[in-house]
Amino acid sequence: MSEANDHPEHGTGGTYSVKGKAFTRDTRYISTRITADGRDGFPVEPGRYRLIAARACPWANRSIIVRRLLGLEDVLSLGLAGPVHDARSWTFDLDPGGRDPVLGIERLQEAYFKRDPEYPRGITVPAIVDTTTGAVVTNDFAQITLDLSTEWREYHRPGAPDLLPAAHRDEVDEVNQRVFTEVNNGVYRCGFAGSQEAYDEAYDRLWVALDWLEERLGSRRYLVGDTITEADVRLFTTLVRFDAVYHGHFKCNRNKLVEMPNLWGYARDLFQTPGFGDTVDFEQIKQHYYVVHKDINPTQIVPKGPDLAGWTTPHGRESLGGRPFGDGTPPGPVRESERVAA
Amino acid sequence: MSEANDHPEHGTGGTYSVKGKAFTRDTRYISTRITADGRDGFPVEPGRYRLIAARACPWANRSIIVRRLLGLEDVLSLGLAGPVHDARSWTFDLDPGGRDPVLGIERLQEAYFKRDPEYPRGITVPAIVDTTTGAVVTNDFAQITLDLSTEWREYHRPGAPDLLPAAHRDEVDEVNQRVFTEVNNGVYRCGFAGSQEAYDEAYDRLWVALDWLEERLGSRRYLVGDTITEADVRLFTTLVRFDAVYHGHFKCNRNKLVEMPNLWGYARDLFQTPGFGDTVDFEQIKQHYYVVHKDINPTQIVPKGPDLAGWTTPHGRESLGGRPFGDGTPPGPVRESERVAA
Repeated sequence: MSEANDHPEHGTGGTYSVKGKAFTRDTRYISTRITADGRDGFPVEPGRYRLIAARACPWANRSIIVRRLLGLEDVLSLGLAGPVHDARSWTFDLDPGGRDPVLGIERLQEAYFKRDPEYPRGITVPAIVDTTTGAVVTNDFAQITLDLSTEWREYHRPGAPDLLPAAHRDEVDEVNQRVFTEVNNGVYRCGFAGSQEAYDEAYDRLWVALDWLEERLGSRRYLVGDTITEADVRLFTTLVRFDAVYHGHFKCNRNKLVEMPNLWGYARDLFQTPGFGDTVDFEQIKQHYYVVHKDINPTQIVPKGPDLAGWTTPHGRESLGGRPFGDGTPPGPVRESERVAA
Repeated sequence: MSEANDHPEHGTGGTYSVKGKAFTRDTRYISTRITADGRDGFPVEPGRYRLIAARACPWANRSIIVRRLLGLEDVLSLGLAGPVHDARSWTFDLDPGGRDPVLGIERLQEAYFKRDPEYPRGITVPAIVDTTTGAVVTNDFAQITLDLSTEWREYHRPGAPDLLPAAHRDEVDEVNQRVFTEVNNGVYRCGFAGSQEAYDEAYDRLWVALDWLEERLGSRRYLVGDTITEADVRLFTTLVRFDAVYHGHFKCNRNKLVEMPNLWGYARDLFQTPGFGDTVDFEQIKQHYYVVHKDINPTQIVPKGPDLAGWTTPHGRESLGGRPFGDGTPPGPVRESERVAA
């Protein structure tokens, strides 16, 4: 989840880095689930829900990738907020008239307030909205992708991969946990550190984890088992932003991703796999971080780099074996309406 | 010259990036020269003058390198200001008691005011001070190194290289001009751009020049002729700071230096040549930029990266031929008192 407003636990307006403090992520989300059996009152139902995401946000990017890998496009529609939000909410400024065409709202905040008029926390993406009421059902980014894999199984496309293979489920969870605390969130801990000490500690933690991943990926094509799993989706969304944003803007600058041969090969391999790179909009990613985090980039100038040409170069990871989609197949081309602008 | 105070041409206190403006360097310096014939009243004289520099500053780094290559240590003493200055002056905070041991002053500004009590411009390094009066003679960084080569020739060490070989003097000047406007100053133009437009333009200009240099250095070991010249000194001081500072802090981030094979080999070759790398203090460099430029790095947090291990790896540039010191010899080891802390 990327928050549109400030960190509520600090109560400071529009501030990401708080002087003297380490960065702490608010991990309280709306935990209602959309399930096959509808036990929370929200049964899986084709056409009823709308996934609101933003291409800029790594936490939302996960849900866009999983939706596409599983072929849920016809069942769960996608609304996209723009990369640059104001202090209080993500907005639909990319849509004609600045309104989401299905929900008819200008600001994602409106759907949160329909759920709870006094919703007290960050207006985050991803969020799934019930189109029959216009209210947010859940914004629990970690649970959303798991539920797409398990609860929405009836509606997966033929050949959809199993991103949570039972035989490896414990290992997926274990890797996910370490990748979340040390990498996905680790880069934010570097970028939003409020003191040199907090930053130094965050940097060391991050690079211990990246060195571990660099080694792990030297002998295996994917993080767990020999197929693409949820664990790869979660690592990918941080890696694809690394050189463009985290390296400079968040000072995660021991090395660029392109200097880590296994991680760079792995990231390119996934980038070139249908469902991954075709969801990535580097311009929106850069716009988001460099413009929104005015407290660490007061000029709001967006760098022109890095050179992105390397992403489409041969990665040679096929030699490690692996069956990207297991017994399944890759997703087809991205539908016209959801294509990332060139 | 790195300025300790604001850009006088903008008249804004402590501000480097001025909203809406492209960065313009004040190029007016005290143009008095110390010459062999003493025509400006300041004849070359062993022991009379003191070079005040700062290891952080690329413009001062030039003079430290040239002084050492030419073996002028016994003739022209060296005072070093600390990396982090206040809004008005470089200070001698690295010295015992916070005073330069020869000049007896705490702030370089004092030597400027001895020269002109109403000195109106930036307090810059390098500056050469007349120890008999305590007043700055010159701070004209571009002229200082040229004069060390030509006017101080009588006092050069045996085997000192000719950094301005007559046969190539025009080419040295020509390369210096382009490197100054496009690279040495080009990185500042990126970092202190006051608008996206000014930055975009600065970035493009910089990379045109770096691509030109990358190509030029593919077939020749040094920039001009087949020996080290003043042109190499001037390019080196920017390259050695590139990945540590300019890439991230100044958003010169199309590529890291380590991604440009010829420039990276060239920079390592010089770094490993006595007189170059042994003058470089990466910690002071990072401290200076990230702490002093509070307007573009408000947290003043100094990145732990980049990994510097590559600087001492084999560069393979010997295969291009070249005679680093021409008919001369490399300088001996750095004297104990001038060694960079490990």
